[in-house]
Amino acid sequence: MTVLSTLTVNSDRLNAYIDRLAKIGQQPSGSICRLAFTPEDLQARYLVQQWMVEAGMNVRIDAAGNLIGTYPGKVATAPVLATGSHIDTVPSGGRFDGVLGVLAGIEVVRTLRDRQIHLNHPLEVIVFTDEESTMIGSQAMAGTVLRDEPERYQPSVEGTIQTCLERIGGNWEALATAKRTDLAAFVELHVEQGAVLEKTGTEIGIVQGVVGMRRKAIAITGVANHAGTTPMNLRQDALVAASQVVLAVREIALQMPTQPVATVGSLVVSPNAVNIVPGHVALTVDLRDLSKTCLDTMLEQLESRLSAIAAETHTTLEVTPILCVEPSLAALPVQSAIETVCQQLGLSYTHLPSRAGHDSLELGRITDMGMIFVPSQAGVSHSEAEYTSPEQCSQGANVLLNALLALDRVYPV
Amino acid sequence: MTVLSTLTVNSDRLNAYIDRLAKIGQQPSGSICRLAFTPEDLQARYLVQQWMVEAGMNVRIDAAGNLIGTYPGKVATAPVLATGSHIDTVPSGGRFDGVLGVLAGIEVVRTLRDRQIHLNHPLEVIVFTDEESTMIGSQAMAGTVLRDEPERYQPSVEGTIQTCLERIGGNWEALATAKRTDLAAFVELHVEQGAVLEKTGTEIGIVQGVVGMRRKAIAITGVANHAGTTPMNLRQDALVAASQVVLAVREIALQMPTQPVATVGSLVVSPNAVNIVPGHVALTVDLRDLSKTCLDTMLEQLESRLSAIAAETHTTLEVTPILCVEPSLAALPVQSAIETVCQQLGLSYTHLPSRAGHDSLELGRITDMGMIFVPSQAGVSHSEAEYTSPEQCSQGANVLLNALLALDRVYPV
Repeated sequence: MTVLSTLTVNSDRLNAYIDRLAKIGQQPSGSICRLAFTPEDLQARYLVQQWMVEAGMNVRIDAAGNLIGTYPGKVATAPVLATGSHIDTVPSGGRFDGVLGVLAGIEVVRTLRDRQIHLNHPLEVIVFTDEESTMIGSQAMAGTVLRDEPERYQPSVEGTIQTCLERIGGNWEALATAKRTDLAAFVELHVEQGAVLEKTGTEIGIVQGVVGMRRKAIAITGVANHAGTTPMNLRQDALVAASQVVLAVREIALQMPTQPVATVGSLVVSPNAVNIVPGHVALTVDLRDLSKTCLDTMLEQLESRLSAIAAETHTTLEVTPILCVEPSLAALPVQSAIETVCQQLGLSYTHLPSRAGHDSLELGRITDMGMIFVPSQAGVSHSEAEYTSPEQCSQGANVLLNALLALDRVYPV
Repeated sequence: MTVLSTLTVNSDRLNAYIDRLAKIGQQPSGSICRLAFTPEDLQARYLVQQWMVEAGMNVRIDAAGNLIGTYPGKVATAPVLATGSHIDTVPSGGRFDGVLGVLAGIEVVRTLRDRQIHLNHPLEVIVFTDEESTMIGSQAMAGTVLRDEPERYQPSVEGTIQTCLERIGGNWEALATAKRTDLAAFVELHVEQGAVLEKTGTEIGIVQGVVGMRRKAIAITGVANHAGTTPMNLRQDALVAASQVVLAVREIALQMPTQPVATVGSLVVSPNAVNIVPGHVALTVDLRDLSKTCLDTMLEQLESRLSAIAAETHTTLEVTPILCVEPSLAALPVQSAIETVCQQLGLSYTHLPSRAGHDSLELGRITDMGMIFVPSQAGVSHSEAEYTSPEQCSQGANVLLNALLALDRVYPV
């Protein structure tokens, strides 16, 4: 096997841009509040757009408000190699989630331009719209938006998805035009937002795919009654039933071979008084795994456990679907290119699933997709404590740069 | 055994007074809102006071605001036979809870006066202050008020206990004067507020005692984390721990021979989001039984289960006492008198504990106490659906009347 020479990005320059973007929407606590479609989001988009132009890219905005910078390739008609991520945050977000992928993409282009290198394929850096809430940007590119049901895409700020898109230069009515058929591959660099890399002392994570998700709401109805005068054998206690559900959800996940995760994150008791037997509980179940079969098996097992719980506790359990997202696997040529680059750069690596959702989930439905993870300190994200060191950020950017160079040779023009 | 002749109250008159009192504080739904210390409470007190005077009683108000009507006995120096209950309600109360015991007491006096009968003992009918919240009335009579800690007695309306007592003719500073040492016995008639009598088709419940109570708050602290990126084996899920606590509380009660009740009525999850592993749960545990030993054993078992749960779930569990009320047993001479009367009147009866709190709980600490229960339709109370038929109300009043006549012979003058 031929060992190729590797390029490296300018680490100081990359980290200075990350620091600069963190100032937009920064809260007194240090967290970032830059919700999609807000003035802060617009200010950040404007800045990133300038940086794209300065790096030598042509910039356009598609109907979903995605900000797309193109660094021309030698073969103008070749399919596009793309990278990118998002710059919107949750209400108390961190400095790296999404931002690293966008700014590393721009730094890759700067590095190529500094050395007057052009790939054969056009290279795009994409800022996807509203990753943290509706994922309207990547879904529009993948053509998976339900365009007859705009009410399903409720942004986390005031306004409909139509008016929000207008604010950032998009257009709901023209959303079909955002769908892409011209991509050769998409690679996203992202912070892990988990603790696997840190705990194993690994520098780079090669993502095997983005997990699919099943979300259900379960409403449990018993009978609210006096906590003193209602004997134990006459109770229909919705919280006893709910507790059995919480433990069943955990047991089902622990018994599966693929190591899925399963969570009851929200649970609300009614009437919720110290001296009243609970009459009603509303809870949510969130199941995630890379294997669709595993997800379906877990749901089947859950249904059967719920029937047994209803019978034992004399309650009724009603299940309503909230969300069903199929897993999206990373393409083997992309995983392989990333692995080779890690070896060339002497970086330790491991393969792992992404258990958080990403724009790559949607891009994987229409093109060869891959993701590069760098460590998150203590696995913390969506918080002012989110941290990835400057060196780790530039290691990730170097893997992205060299992986894109490798993929330029893998995919035909 | 000599069969004694029995007296009966005027059922229509008793039920007309119940109807009249139900008009004060009645809501559009039919429920009664007559919180202690409100204008509605004062209006009801004023009316009941008039009815006491009309029935031939001398009326006074003690330092706790208790309204006390005395029907003189033949022996003025004899210890007092007392009956009574309360006329305050919860925010959505029923027509019978408390009211039946007060108005039946007055009807008993009317019946005696109509026949020009006087007992040997003075006979008191007591309206206790604020049974539904602070129980300040019966506690003051029992001398169990913590007079250095007025802030513990927060009425459910605006104002301190001091200002609230003033409104109804009481006086916090003089509370010690309300303590009674001159009682021979106390008998309270009350609706069951449970379904035991109805389910067994029994007309009268002879209360064995009022259960004691242990209430604890449990704060469970784990680590809030991303529901996707946190593997199952690295979680410190406070809701998983809480669910184990809920089920442990139930199991512990079911294993005890005395049939105690145990309830987790309130449970609050934080941050309570569908995609976040719960980091904190606050819940309450309420244990009730007639046996102090059973209560203490349940608490010991709970402590040991909590330690095991903390270890297994990698969470910390902090227990804070909320309430500790010792059980109060009914005196055997009073239970026996009620039983004999039921036999004389041809009413079916059963012995049972009172698992709801009552003024009798406190009175039992200073004198021979007993309670008479009549059925509650479907066991419902604290609701507009609370219902006991006119016939059942007068059956209870007849048992009260004849039990007081019997006790007049049991207790020395």
